[in-house]
Amino acid sequence: MKPINVGLLGLGTVGGGVAKVLARNAEEISRRAGRAIEVKIAAVRDLDKARATAPAGLALTTDPYAVVDHPDIDIVVELIGGTSIARDLVLRAIANGKHVVTANKALLAIHGNEVFADAQKQGVMVAFEAAVAGGIPIIKALREGLSANRIEWIAGIINGTSNYILSEMRDRGAEFGTVLAEAQKLGYAEADPTFDIEGVDAAHKLTILAALAFGIPMQFDKAYLEGISKLTQEDIGYAEQLGYRIKLLGITKRKADGIELRVHPTLVPERQIIANVNGVMNAVMIKGDAVGQTLYSGRGAGAEPTASAVVADLVDVTRLLTADPEHRVPHLAFQPDRLADLKILPIEEVETSYYLRLRAHDRPGVMADITRILADLSISIDAMMQKEPAEGEQIVDIIILTHQAVERSVDTAIMLIESLPTIAGKITKLRLENLNK
Amino acid sequence: MKPINVGLLGLGTVGGGVAKVLARNAEEISRRAGRAIEVKIAAVRDLDKARATAPAGLALTTDPYAVVDHPDIDIVVELIGGTSIARDLVLRAIANGKHVVTANKALLAIHGNEVFADAQKQGVMVAFEAAVAGGIPIIKALREGLSANRIEWIAGIINGTSNYILSEMRDRGAEFGTVLAEAQKLGYAEADPTFDIEGVDAAHKLTILAALAFGIPMQFDKAYLEGISKLTQEDIGYAEQLGYRIKLLGITKRKADGIELRVHPTLVPERQIIANVNGVMNAVMIKGDAVGQTLYSGRGAGAEPTASAVVADLVDVTRLLTADPEHRVPHLAFQPDRLADLKILPIEEVETSYYLRLRAHDRPGVMADITRILADLSISIDAMMQKEPAEGEQIVDIIILTHQAVERSVDTAIMLIESLPTIAGKITKLRLENLNK
Repeated sequence: MKPINVGLLGLGTVGGGVAKVLARNAEEISRRAGRAIEVKIAAVRDLDKARATAPAGLALTTDPYAVVDHPDIDIVVELIGGTSIARDLVLRAIANGKHVVTANKALLAIHGNEVFADAQKQGVMVAFEAAVAGGIPIIKALREGLSANRIEWIAGIINGTSNYILSEMRDRGAEFGTVLAEAQKLGYAEADPTFDIEGVDAAHKLTILAALAFGIPMQFDKAYLEGISKLTQEDIGYAEQLGYRIKLLGITKRKADGIELRVHPTLVPERQIIANVNGVMNAVMIKGDAVGQTLYSGRGAGAEPTASAVVADLVDVTRLLTADPEHRVPHLAFQPDRLADLKILPIEEVETSYYLRLRAHDRPGVMADITRILADLSISIDAMMQKEPAEGEQIVDIIILTHQAVERSVDTAIMLIESLPTIAGKITKLRLENLNK
Repeated sequence: MKPINVGLLGLGTVGGGVAKVLARNAEEISRRAGRAIEVKIAAVRDLDKARATAPAGLALTTDPYAVVDHPDIDIVVELIGGTSIARDLVLRAIANGKHVVTANKALLAIHGNEVFADAQKQGVMVAFEAAVAGGIPIIKALREGLSANRIEWIAGIINGTSNYILSEMRDRGAEFGTVLAEAQKLGYAEADPTFDIEGVDAAHKLTILAALAFGIPMQFDKAYLEGISKLTQEDIGYAEQLGYRIKLLGITKRKADGIELRVHPTLVPERQIIANVNGVMNAVMIKGDAVGQTLYSGRGAGAEPTASAVVADLVDVTRLLTADPEHRVPHLAFQPDRLADLKILPIEEVETSYYLRLRAHDRPGVMADITRILADLSISIDAMMQKEPAEGEQIVDIIILTHQAVERSVDTAIMLIESLPTIAGKITKLRLENLNK
């Protein structure tokens, strides 16, 4: 089956990420989508600059209309941003009968009603998973996964820059201006940070979520906005003493007489998971009448997390254009004739970290024996804790945490340690995962 | 357009929940799906018992084959559980050309390869969002939302019963047997709890997630299982002292030479969000090469959370049978001609809680004046904190947290309090959300 041809508008951070992910995971993606997805052409601002980093074989142009008017392009990916040229290009692509994937929340929050009406008329899709919360599939969760529910409210950390600034202000006691300047140096905040720190970007995203949750048109102009630039250490400190963290939340809520739609700094009880989502991470809580509260978190920005959402949309469109309607999404995610024959590893070959609890006679040389056995089997120790024996007791508990090791080696070590004369009884073995990589 | 007709196999906890959610949210659901979804017939074990609680107009039968063979039924929902009769019924429904929605993880983990092959041949869908993690749309996230990624690993709390027991063991220092007996009384654990506490149920679900993540067939027989019944307070305590919590995790991981597939008690660093998912809640972490780590949490069991997933699948199937392929899922979740005209409330009409910081001269009567103004405006106080003035200072900080109040009243109160002669300068107002309802 011939590949689906994609044209990119923009080859910056996100555009570059899209090209990279599509190339790197081409095999995995075509097994899922049922055919290949290939970037054919990209419109860029600076041809020379783009040539230096663009993948070989990718046609480049400085004329974005050459992409949206290109007869061979099936899907246009709009990553230019803004609401003027991007609007023209998206409407033109739609008029040309092309499907559109966009990460442009401002465009949708402000011109979405027009864009979707045109798409409906032309029979094309406009997909926008990347517009809210980066790689977290929150649009899909809300539009499909929770479709049984009357949505009651949504509350989200949906701007990574402001969450980073608030996290740093709390952790280090630094004032807003100081942290903002650092964030700008690190590339977490733009030269003109207004959209991020004054809640505009969050309100664009919240407008989209509210439309999906409640079945209302986009109404960005009615959102209430308040940013984080006036927050002080005093208030962060007092909130903390009372058991709260301050987060910039986008909140939309169904009330008897209408919909609340607001972005502002918000005190949240520290025991709430969302209060502990820090740095550039995003998180969205959704309350549905049947499902109760669900929470979704992950990276809300960056080249590859955003590309993850853009490419998921490309796969979505491709699946519709490719499969029988009944098998749009393969039952097991991958096309049935393209399942893999990967072996399931027996537990002895698993590699993880371990918690070992030993009971030992409190005599010289015990530790030396144990550590020698572990070292001989290349099991390295992360932490060790010996409890003082109780009054009159001769036997002590020793706890050992290991670094990553193969289960078979650990089992051998346990057998050898248990046979030491200084060891009393069986060793307790539990597995440990840091989940940080 | 004529409604989609659903036949239920089972009208117990989940079946009852499905009927209830479909009825209660009928309007919302048809706005999303493009047509009505109606339960026409249900197969039950005890006719008299079922009649007492079944919705009026729902045909009941004790013969499940009367449902799967019924000529008017479009989608069969299998909620019987187990792997023998359920298998026969699902295969028969498929042979009859009916779409199937099931919550039966054991069936899929053990007979999934056969079931999906038949479905593929017959051109019908077998949807199973409810089989893993209840109402959390984790199947959709993995199969569609993260389709750009090479999945590296998944780690999940996917059995609510064992997570409840572990949470109680930690919080109260009670031993496993005690907590299990209580959980059985509360209905959180079954009379024969083996499947939940020995990791069988979690391994069924993990088998499904691994198939979707890596594109491999279901291989439940190769999963490694270890339950929580041997865990002691000693190990929970030592883990805690070392900075870890113990959770029953299902873990599947891609390694160079195969796939790890294992369920066992696991030490997890306490700073990880998943370490703080307690009680009957479920949470799944997925690591993809592009998106990084994402996390999904919510209720993993119960009538309505599970019904939320079943009905989402019904909407999914209905949308495919109803819409043009290009508009399977409406852009704004609801059909374009069925958007609602709900008013966006201005910020003055918003109702939330508030944090107020006042600077006041430390004189008698200040508090009385403030509390009177708040009481007159029906704003009730949740907490109040007065900081001691610094050496030689005459002005103190007073922090007030209010219960829910209307923003307009709070603004009026602020104006009145600021005009008191004992108050210095402007009041800082922040909003507060408990996010607990």
